Amino acid sequence: MVNNKKYVYFFGNKIAEGNGDLKSLLGGKGAGLAEMTRIGLPVPGGFTITTEVCNLFFKNNNQYPDGLEEQVERNLRNLEKIVGKKLGDPEDPLLVSVRSGAPISMPGMMETILNLGLNDASVQGLAKKTQNERFAYDAYRRFILMYSSTAKNIAREKFDTIFEETKDAKTRARLGLPADKKVADTDLNTDELKEIVEKFKAVYKNELGEDFPQDPMKQLWGAIDAVFHSWMGEKAVKYREVEKISNIYGTAVNVVQMVFGNMGETSGTGVCFTRDPNTGENVFYGDYLVNAQGEDVVAGIRTPMKLDELHKKNAGLYDQLVNVRKKLEHHYRDMQDLEFTVEDNKLYMLQCRSGKRSPKASFVIAYDLVQEGLISKEEAVERIKPNDIEGIFYPVIDPSQKEQLKEFYIGHGIDAVPGAATGKVVFSAKRAEELAAQKEKVILVRKETSPEDVGGMHVAQGILTATGGKTSHAAVVARGWGKCCIVGCGVLEIDYDKKQFTIGKHTIKEGDEITLDGSHGYIYKTTLKLCIPELPQSYYEIMKWADEIRKINVKTNADSPEDAEAARKLGAKGIGLCRTEHMFFGSEERIMAIQEMIVADSVEERKNALAKLLPFQTEDFKGIFTSMNHYPVTIRLIDPPLHEFAPQTPEQQKKLADKLNIGVEKIAARVHQLKETNPMLGHRGCRLAVTYPEILEMQVRAIITAACECSKKGIEVHPEIMIPLIIDIKEFHLLESKVRTVADEILKQNNVSIAYKVGTMIEIPRAALLADEIAEYAEFFSFGTNDLTQMTLGMSRDDSGKFLPEYIDEKKAAIFHDDPFQSIDQKGVGALVKMAVQKGRTTRPDINLGVCGEHGGESVSVKFFASIGLNYVSCSPLRVPIARLAAAQYEIEKKKLRKS
Amino acid sequence: MVNNKKYVYFFGNKIAEGNGDLKSLLGGKGAGLAEMTRIGLPVPGGFTITTEVCNLFFKNNNQYPDGLEEQVERNLRNLEKIVGKKLGDPEDPLLVSVRSGAPISMPGMMETILNLGLNDASVQGLAKKTQNERFAYDAYRRFILMYSSTAKNIAREKFDTIFEETKDAKTRARLGLPADKKVADTDLNTDELKEIVEKFKAVYKNELGEDFPQDPMKQLWGAIDAVFHSWMGEKAVKYREVEKISNIYGTAVNVVQMVFGNMGETSGTGVCFTRDPNTGENVFYGDYLVNAQGEDVVAGIRTPMKLDELHKKNAGLYDQLVNVRKKLEHHYRDMQDLEFTVEDNKLYMLQCRSGKRSPKASFVIAYDLVQEGLISKEEAVERIKPNDIEGIFYPVIDPSQKEQLKEFYIGHGIDAVPGAATGKVVFSAKRAEELAAQKEKVILVRKETSPEDVGGMHVAQGILTATGGKTSHAAVVARGWGKCCIVGCGVLEIDYDKKQFTIGKHTIKEGDEITLDGSHGYIYKTTLKLCIPELPQSYYEIMKWADEIRKINVKTNADSPEDAEAARKLGAKGIGLCRTEHMFFGSEERIMAIQEMIVADSVEERKNALAKLLPFQTEDFKGIFTSMNHYPVTIRLIDPPLHEFAPQTPEQQKKLADKLNIGVEKIAARVHQLKETNPMLGHRGCRLAVTYPEILEMQVRAIITAACECSKKGIEVHPEIMIPLIIDIKEFHLLESKVRTVADEILKQNNVSIAYKVGTMIEIPRAALLADEIAEYAEFFSFGTNDLTQMTLGMSRDDSGKFLPEYIDEKKAAIFHDDPFQSIDQKGVGALVKMAVQKGRTTRPDINLGVCGEHGGESVSVKFFASIGLNYVSCSPLRVPIARLAAAQYEIEKKKLRKS
Repeated sequence: MVNNKKYVYFFGNKIAEGNGDLKSLLGGKGAGLAEMTRIGLPVPGGFTITTEVCNLFFKNNNQYPDGLEEQVERNLRNLEKIVGKKLGDPEDPLLVSVRSGAPISMPGMMETILNLGLNDASVQGLAKKTQNERFAYDAYRRFILMYSSTAKNIAREKFDTIFEETKDAKTRARLGLPADKKVADTDLNTDELKEIVEKFKAVYKNELGEDFPQDPMKQLWGAIDAVFHSWMGEKAVKYREVEKISNIYGTAVNVVQMVFGNMGETSGTGVCFTRDPNTGENVFYGDYLVNAQGEDVVAGIRTPMKLDELHKKNAGLYDQLVNVRKKLEHHYRDMQDLEFTVEDNKLYMLQCRSGKRSPKASFVIAYDLVQEGLISKEEAVERIKPNDIEGIFYPVIDPSQKEQLKEFYIGHGIDAVPGAATGKVVFSAKRAEELAAQKEKVILVRKETSPEDVGGMHVAQGILTATGGKTSHAAVVARGWGKCCIVGCGVLEIDYDKKQFTIGKHTIKEGDEITLDGSHGYIYKTTLKLCIPELPQSYYEIMKWADEIRKINVKTNADSPEDAEAARKLGAKGIGLCRTEHMFFGSEERIMAIQEMIVADSVEERKNALAKLLPFQTEDFKGIFTSMNHYPVTIRLIDPPLHEFAPQTPEQQKKLADKLNIGVEKIAARVHQLKETNPMLGHRGCRLAVTYPEILEMQVRAIITAACECSKKGIEVHPEIMIPLIIDIKEFHLLESKVRTVADEILKQNNVSIAYKVGTMIEIPRAALLADEIAEYAEFFSFGTNDLTQMTLGMSRDDSGKFLPEYIDEKKAAIFHDDPFQSIDQKGVGALVKMAVQKGRTTRPDINLGVCGEHGGESVSVKFFASIGLNYVSCSPLRVPIARLAAAQYEIEKKKLRKS
Repeated sequence: MVNNKKYVYFFGNKIAEGNGDLKSLLGGKGAGLAEMTRIGLPVPGGFTITTEVCNLFFKNNNQYPDGLEEQVERNLRNLEKIVGKKLGDPEDPLLVSVRSGAPISMPGMMETILNLGLNDASVQGLAKKTQNERFAYDAYRRFILMYSSTAKNIAREKFDTIFEETKDAKTRARLGLPADKKVADTDLNTDELKEIVEKFKAVYKNELGEDFPQDPMKQLWGAIDAVFHSWMGEKAVKYREVEKISNIYGTAVNVVQMVFGNMGETSGTGVCFTRDPNTGENVFYGDYLVNAQGEDVVAGIRTPMKLDELHKKNAGLYDQLVNVRKKLEHHYRDMQDLEFTVEDNKLYMLQCRSGKRSPKASFVIAYDLVQEGLISKEEAVERIKPNDIEGIFYPVIDPSQKEQLKEFYIGHGIDAVPGAATGKVVFSAKRAEELAAQKEKVILVRKETSPEDVGGMHVAQGILTATGGKTSHAAVVARGWGKCCIVGCGVLEIDYDKKQFTIGKHTIKEGDEITLDGSHGYIYKTTLKLCIPELPQSYYEIMKWADEIRKINVKTNADSPEDAEAARKLGAKGIGLCRTEHMFFGSEERIMAIQEMIVADSVEERKNALAKLLPFQTEDFKGIFTSMNHYPVTIRLIDPPLHEFAPQTPEQQKKLADKLNIGVEKIAARVHQLKETNPMLGHRGCRLAVTYPEILEMQVRAIITAACECSKKGIEVHPEIMIPLIIDIKEFHLLESKVRTVADEILKQNNVSIAYKVGTMIEIPRAALLADEIAEYAEFFSFGTNDLTQMTLGMSRDDSGKFLPEYIDEKKAAIFHDDPFQSIDQKGVGALVKMAVQKGRTTRPDINLGVCGEHGGESVSVKFFASIGLNYVSCSPLRVPIARLAAAQYEIEKKKLRKS
């Protein structure tokens, strides 16, 4: 049976079988190479084995699909034809690189093998053809190393040791260098390299029991195998987990004609961004390393030259690059991240992809592209990611600390990712994850980072490395997260064993606190106060566009006038959740009053204690109404179980006993009595109001009294009283009647007319199931998706740490795609919310529906809430812009869907 | 506007406006009187004010509906006409009784006023007419007392004091009785009674500031008011709460011509049952008190004569009664509870209602009625109440304790309700409720009980009273509940102040433990071992009929071969829930092994510990499969969080540490680490299997190994492996695959073919919502309605004690009709179950669906489960017969509904 399926796509000679749209099939790199070939850029020839092959390979027990071998063979012949060289030709060999390329950029994740096609015969042909024997053997030694370590998993150290020993024993002696002087790789001569090649081959044979493969086809398939296997390697899986990448086929494999950046001073290799990825400024930005090959720039091994230096040194090359930059930005209508190699002054483009950028740069670039007429406003809004918004608010060092800045400054590195961070120093990703799990803030300090460190980098507040440039692994990964990062700090000396680093005379041990200023690259040996930076104008413009596009309202969760004020500045139109209980902790006097209420023996005593709280609560609400002038304020009546307020320590109990002049044993007994087996499902929320209606009465009194006083001062108040934890219409009606009785009485006394509303949280499954009944009396619903998630999934957020990570772990149970407490569980909890929305509207078509759980500020969840027709989401102040943007993006996506 | 609504129904002279079907409108008493009148029995004339009036009265702010006054007036005139006497007539007055009568029998709850119509003038008329002045004044004094105390709430003691003082001061002196001799009520002469009447009237005036009403109409309305008010009195409300009576209109008021049982030796009053209410035997059963009025028999003040005594003494009267008995049983086709009065040898029927009976009697009577051709088998099945089945299994004293029976016997009373009970002695209903709330078993000991005691009676294990007969308040109420009760224990002397009682030389204090043998009336001063009695043949017959009628299967929840055996005897066809974790507590060795597993540091250590448990579990399952030969056995994998098995005390931790030879601090740390904030929503159920798959593997290995061994022995095994706490199809599929891998491997090893099934509990809302997906892999669902209720209502059963009582309390929040942990919340939890049933069947039409929560043995819930199409319910062994019966009753009800 012949398999006619196309698994391999060719490109070269300005013609490509694939194109830029086939990213999911060809991977980002393959699609980029095909597209660049099509639009006439100088790209070496080659072919791409599709991601589908990767998928089939793992599905079929590590077997390639039928027909693949033949297709690879055919494309290789084609490549040989257009290049005019043959793989393994002992006279003039074709060399190829074999690289991975997944549909989503995963920097450094996949393995790369260069110079494939070299063997004992062809290395001599290469030497003859290039008239550079040293270059040929250096290439061969690199190939053996890469092939052995990445394709065959032989420990790299075995080769490094030989390399270093040869340098030390032979090169050093030959050059007569003193012991304290380092021998450079370039100091090795051809004979030494030949010796190394022989020793490398011996290691290979010793480890695997067979000769290093001389057959180039065997080399090629070995390399292809290695790329595919790396897709399921631990570090790749970890990266996908952290980045929440799933539902993609696999990686593609790109087999590309080698071009050499290491053929002397007229050659080199570079990485660049078409705009500044940190500031977003429209300047050409990148690094160029003369006489270097492959990944030397990205790995940050030598410090490269900037592009403007290149401009001065080699204007011709620079102009070629500027032309490519212009062509690509217009073609892709976005800032691009490019990799290129120059072989004897001829430019070859090796990769092109949408460039990662800092949060600030995201806004600046998107805005500029609109101004330049390259994209629409809607596209600009679409391009801002939730992380960009979070990142743009990332703190900087509070500039008021001028003295401290001087006192604690210990050195600087390269300002790779802006923002500032403070935390305890750790020296391994593992330790970072451990401490972060204990809610510690950490700064990860490494010589350089590698894909194995991704987990630890993710949980760290900031990253500091000793080597590397702005395009090094650490910088690229951190930038994607908008996480403060300083790289290339040459003065940094790390002792992993002693768990400390030194910068000059300063020694910092694990656990010591430091501050990083990623915007300037400065390091401080203390915890400095951070503050929120000024936002670029493009932020305001794009958010304005988002507000014009979105239909769902965004409110905030705020418990104090300060929070309310902050949230209004961030674009919140009203308070969707004001938790009244936080106010009880406001002062010693308040907490004593609430505790007095808790231990009260009779309704009278309880009322007396509550009377003490009344003036405080009234003042609180006045502040909040004032700060939310014009906008609705949804106030939730007391929600947590009383034991959360109870005096827990013997000292606290004694204090209360003394104040109330009763026995401490009585207090202790009452506190003990309040204990609950499952407080989440206990005596809380409206159940408190059912058993202690006087608490409800006090709170309503405070709310409406405050509203009256504000109203008299000309403030426009829209109080909405929210009863939490409702499960039944009778329960709601009982309490709602009490609310109205008290409220109407106060309004009458004050002779003020205020259209207050009474509604409920929908946070228990039963309430969602019976939402049609509850809507008979409730004027609004606010979905409390935190608790609703806990109940619907039968999962306590506090206790889920012991198993939920495995549920989300792609390599373990892989039951949930996301943490359901972060991003709403659409199938389960979401279905309940949807049901309640429909039922609520059936009974009361104009019911106001919103959400006030954490999910209200998470992008995917906000889009879901918009899709099921909620009127608003409410979230913590800093997440208000995320919600605004997500709401707009939802409308744009919907419009697109409708068109398609 | 004229109100044409009929509020009053007349009966008398063999004609009645109402009939026996109008129970909800006329109350049980009113409907009974109307029906008895219609079928020609001797009933005094009178009229009934409907329950609707009661309802309107409370709805309209204690106002009677328009037209009522006129209707009462008209009916009174009618009554006067047929009797030939006028109310208040100074020559020959009509006297009436005013009594309550609700649609459901509420013994002693409502107030009764007799002899109404007497005043200073008519008392003389009565005296003249009856030629019995003493009788007339005795009647007047009773009337004033009843009217004052019940209609006007004047403390009864004020009258009792006068009465006793007069007896002591006047009667004793007149008769020359010594101080230690008691003066009987009958010793008072006319003058003394006249004096008492005057003093009573003075008390009335003194208390209320007005004269005792002489106008009979004023008296009548005062009495009617009193009856209606008593409907909302505390004790009536409490009774309805305990008995779960709601949704009935109110009480009716019966105004009936007085007949006098206290007119000498040819008069009397009696209460009887048409069959023995304890054994169900077809014998005439009752008490007759000569020369007594009204409630004297029920109140148990004097000890009455049995009916066979009456037969000997007054055959004529007895024959009249026997005729009535026959007529009524054939008319009502059920055992009847009758009240009658004999006035000068003429029989008057005062009341007739379906008689309360013991659980055993329920079966015997229903069966006998079928045999007698009076009712159908279906009717017999319908008549058995859930309480009857529970009651029939009520324990008796284990007959092996012959020595103890002799040693601890202290006395006996009347065997009012059979069964036996042990508990701590308490002397007040309040104390009974307090101790019962602390899970103490109590025996309530009272001189006599009254409606105020109902709450305490309900929570007590048994009831013992010093006075009263088998128809006394205590006996009637206790019988309804099938609760062990001994009454009329004349040797019992109670000292409420000292909180002790004496019987002869024995003194028993509050808190001492006693045993009651209600079947014989014996009292023992110790806790004796109880056991389950032999069941009457009628039980087996009726249950057989029920099994023929029902369609839903009944299984049992059983964790041991003993339970399984017991349940099979009670009719269970299979095990619906076998909890494996209880087995871990089986022995020291087992608990040590499970604890070793918990503290294990590695998978290897955990597997080692589990290997120790494997043989135990295998043996357990062999026992269970053997005892359930032929029937399916559903085994649930480990469910509770591991901390439930952890060693909690320092001693236990030390022991484990010593055994494992590790530091106790390591054990303590692990135990601490296992603590959870909300264990109900924590790391339990299948989450344990996700994180520790080796536990699942061990359990499956034990189950299938046991199944193989049993199968080889010729036992027919049907193992069903149940995975608890599932929330997602991926989660289920992951674990189900593991189950199958292990199971299939063992089957293969054993070369045995067993069609095991793998299914899940549906006990978390998300599982119900996504049941269609889960059914893709799950072969059965078992609804775990206990947890499902907790999650759906967001209510922890353990913590709900602080608020749930108010939620159910009719006078407080009245949010739930029933405790949702007892009877399934049909609207909320039930809706989820129904949804899951539909979804599950959509994916897998032949999916086996059952329920294994507590609700599976509760009558109303079982009917609900049958109605939504479950295949089976599973419940604790003792509840299996309840479920069988309820399932049959559901089919009967459905058939009736279809017909109507």
